[in-house]
Amino acid sequence: MCPMELLKQKILAEGRALNEHVLLVDCFLNHQVDVKLMKAVGEEFARRFADAGVTRIATIESSGIAPAAMTALEMDLPMVIMKKSVSSILKDGIIQTEVFSFTKNAPYLLTLKTQFIKPGDNVLLIDDFLANGEAAFGGISLLEKAGAKVAGVGAVIAKAFQPGMQKLRAAGYRVEALAPVRRMAEGLIEFGE
Amino acid sequence: MCPMELLKQKILAEGRALNEHVLLVDCFLNHQVDVKLMKAVGEEFARRFADAGVTRIATIESSGIAPAAMTALEMDLPMVIMKKSVSSILKDGIIQTEVFSFTKNAPYLLTLKTQFIKPGDNVLLIDDFLANGEAAFGGISLLEKAGAKVAGVGAVIAKAFQPGMQKLRAAGYRVEALAPVRRMAEGLIEFGE
Repeated sequence: MCPMELLKQKILAEGRALNEHVLLVDCFLNHQVDVKLMKAVGEEFARRFADAGVTRIATIESSGIAPAAMTALEMDLPMVIMKKSVSSILKDGIIQTEVFSFTKNAPYLLTLKTQFIKPGDNVLLIDDFLANGEAAFGGISLLEKAGAKVAGVGAVIAKAFQPGMQKLRAAGYRVEALAPVRRMAEGLIEFGE
Repeated sequence: MCPMELLKQKILAEGRALNEHVLLVDCFLNHQVDVKLMKAVGEEFARRFADAGVTRIATIESSGIAPAAMTALEMDLPMVIMKKSVSSILKDGIIQTEVFSFTKNAPYLLTLKTQFIKPGDNVLLIDDFLANGEAAFGGISLLEKAGAKVAGVGAVIAKAFQPGMQKLRAAGYRVEALAPVRRMAEGLIEFGE
């Protein structure tokens, strides 16, 4: 079975569509994490973006870290974690942008130390979910403010029925979703873009 | 060079002691992440806890995720991320404990869905830093509340001059620190327990 067939099987077997909008995958993606599956995910992102001249992997704290780390390992690149909360230590040389989280129903300040992303960098942004695209556009905005190009966005799961994927593509960004979900309802998950 | 010598060299070369208490390692551990080094870290934790009968790797959101994921990969175990913030989706079957963060100077509610840690589990808790031990004791308290045993605590860096490591050992927990720091001052980092 190809690795992404495995991911889809896992979503069908262990994921749970609570309604038309909420897909619960906390038993293998964002609370408990199947790291072997994340390794397969990282290998697949590395394969899809092999020709993209990527110089750095970026992700958004914190559910994107495991798949992004495995992608960075496979591509032999550093990973940069854009932060949702700022420690008292992290205050110099930072740039920030406000992002609205639909999951938490509140905005947060996405933060990046510019020392880690430079003009000339070509960054692949990896996250666990792509839905409305708020987090992805926030991340892209920081990466571009730091002078980098964005090689693309890789999402483990994309809710293709929400506007994020289309908006990103319309804005000229390459998007790869390993498990795009076309339709959900209680107990139903249908794959497709 | 043995892997942990590599880690210490990296700390000396790229870490920065700002004063007697603050060690800045955000260029390879918690903002930008050297995933190859994290893989070596994971291999070393796996080696040290090989005989401990570990059934699950746990970590605390979010800087522990990369080293914990690499440890879980090496030991072929699932990883469980204890959460610092709770999404509106995550509300059933959870246990929580209040932890004070000295870095953020504020308390947070550490959260675990009991479905992912069971009586009979023997959990290795991995984190990036061990200092006062607040986070580690909070994590242990949740793991034990869920009915699990704690096989030990693995810290990438431990500030051995702060009370966490000693308090954990005094309470009977096995602690492995890959880079224990005995003393710090501006521009000075001295290793040792």
